[in-house]
Amino acid sequence: MAALSLAEAVPTEKMPGWQQALSEMFGTAKLPPLLDMLKRVIEANQATRKPKIAKGTRDFMPDQMTIREQAFAKIVSVFKRHGAVAIDTPVFELRETLMGKYGEDSKLIYDLADQGGENLSLRYDLTVPFARYTALHGMGNIKRYHIARVYRRDQPQMNRGRFREFFQCDFDIAGAYAAMVPDAEVLKVLVEILSDLALGDFEIKLNHRGLLDTMMDIAGVPTSKFRPICSAIDKLDKEPWEEVRREMVEDKGLPGPVADRIGEYVVLKGEPWEMLKKLTDDSCALSSHPISSATLADMKTLFEYLDSMGALGAISFDLSLARGLDYYTGVIYEAVLKGGGVGSIAAGG
Amino acid sequence: MAALSLAEAVPTEKMPGWQQALSEMFGTAKLPPLLDMLKRVIEANQATRKPKIAKGTRDFMPDQMTIREQAFAKIVSVFKRHGAVAIDTPVFELRETLMGKYGEDSKLIYDLADQGGENLSLRYDLTVPFARYTALHGMGNIKRYHIARVYRRDQPQMNRGRFREFFQCDFDIAGAYAAMVPDAEVLKVLVEILSDLALGDFEIKLNHRGLLDTMMDIAGVPTSKFRPICSAIDKLDKEPWEEVRREMVEDKGLPGPVADRIGEYVVLKGEPWEMLKKLTDDSCALSSHPISSATLADMKTLFEYLDSMGALGAISFDLSLARGLDYYTGVIYEAVLKGGGVGSIAAGG
Repeated sequence: MAALSLAEAVPTEKMPGWQQALSEMFGTAKLPPLLDMLKRVIEANQATRKPKIAKGTRDFMPDQMTIREQAFAKIVSVFKRHGAVAIDTPVFELRETLMGKYGEDSKLIYDLADQGGENLSLRYDLTVPFARYTALHGMGNIKRYHIARVYRRDQPQMNRGRFREFFQCDFDIAGAYAAMVPDAEVLKVLVEILSDLALGDFEIKLNHRGLLDTMMDIAGVPTSKFRPICSAIDKLDKEPWEEVRREMVEDKGLPGPVADRIGEYVVLKGEPWEMLKKLTDDSCALSSHPISSATLADMKTLFEYLDSMGALGAISFDLSLARGLDYYTGVIYEAVLKGGGVGSIAAGG
Repeated sequence: MAALSLAEAVPTEKMPGWQQALSEMFGTAKLPPLLDMLKRVIEANQATRKPKIAKGTRDFMPDQMTIREQAFAKIVSVFKRHGAVAIDTPVFELRETLMGKYGEDSKLIYDLADQGGENLSLRYDLTVPFARYTALHGMGNIKRYHIARVYRRDQPQMNRGRFREFFQCDFDIAGAYAAMVPDAEVLKVLVEILSDLALGDFEIKLNHRGLLDTMMDIAGVPTSKFRPICSAIDKLDKEPWEEVRREMVEDKGLPGPVADRIGEYVVLKGEPWEMLKKLTDDSCALSSHPISSATLADMKTLFEYLDSMGALGAISFDLSLARGLDYYTGVIYEAVLKGGGVGSIAAGG
């Protein structure tokens, strides 16, 4: 475009052929505004034709691919060290396989157009496809990892690193094992990966669905409201208690005193053994409730395993931690970088 | 289910609780037919609930993943040895990016459901996304590889290894280079990969779009029919000449004598230097036609490069080779295993 904006100063005989031809047709006086107009038309066309990438997705350039491959290699190395095998599943599943598995989030599932065949949807995570995989192939005990892209038809905040297409690196232990053994190994794997990736100081917030349920039961939440209230608690890492309380009372119809009793529990967090001591003390209602007393015994077993594996130092026992999806029934956890700002960097249950 | 079919022989007191309860309600005489009915109902339910995988897709089990990873590692190693860098692009593109790029095959593109946002389609290959990538990021010369899945809404013959979701391993050289240098390197890369993978004896059929066009011009095909006739020639590896001739004459309206003149060319194939000698001889109409004479000079250059790289032995110069997609303009090729049966195992242009 530089040649065009310089045209006024260029002697006619030095102009490119087409400019010279134009100049002869219109005289040099008229040439600059004509060129200006041409410039605008051409630039507008280029803007129109500029190829676009789909919203919420990204290209990986060679240098980004190098980083990605190095990170995945470290993660895979930890997975393999713990005896996991790789599997892979298709990017889409029958719509019925995904339906009803994600609660409120089901609206974020990408459907394929009905093209006279099956009804298909892009996978939302790797967990439900893995459940379909084990049901289809009839596996017994399996420890597997799966690194692949998942899809969420969200309004992503790309400046915060959130996309509509992104990778999940999943590690699962399926089958029958002694209590808390798989949970301990999964947490150990997470600690090893976060150490190897050297992203900075991290902390793993840990809780148990059984404690959340008991807490709500003791506070007086009706069973039918456990899930909506749980999903309100889940927002505590992004919103202050006052806003979460408002949602419980105004949006979800919980009496104020019930919400306040929840508020007394969700402030409890800290070093695992100290927390366990506090919660199993006779003065704590959780210690005698039938669900939570069994759960607290499980937590003790889990902490003993983690301690012997040198993985307990990274754990914070945090009663405010909840997870949105319905399929979590036992231990739940979320890893965050200390210093914050980036949200959770790994999670599971 | 074993417990059910054995019920007749089991003393009532040894039966599981629910069978015992049934037995008391109906008496043991009525129990076996009742259990039989229950068995049928349960099995029918299980058949309904058996989770399904989407048609034309597959799960990769751990042992298949091992083979896949080994094969990809060998392929990537050859790509890197030739100085290629990795890139990756999203699984879907704006529909307009893919539209009009694949001729008749556009009907095989998977569209995503219109969900109030952009119109999106799953990628059909890695070539058009790469063109979009280079246009968007404004690269100069780049040698890149891209290993990823592509999607075709086909009726796939899965017993012949054809799927709706499958991997492509692409290697591309984009930018400005001396004539035939990138073509020679791409073919050398292909020879190295097929040797390293040790799939068995292979052969690379080679042709040039310029020769196909000249051949049709000399035979008397009108320019407007070049593409339909080309796509008929493309079927010669699966159908006999008689069927291809019938398609040209009956379906595509070519006069019989014109089809017969094409028939005289498409039987020509063989060792590159011998074929080149034959086609550049004054007695061959291709030698003096303006398009093909330049093309034959290019082929000579290409063969010299391949010869010096020790890659010419695998090449068969084959005038019957055509490629379906519109975006091929120069050299085209297709690799097949000798002994046949599996169709082409790699192709490009």
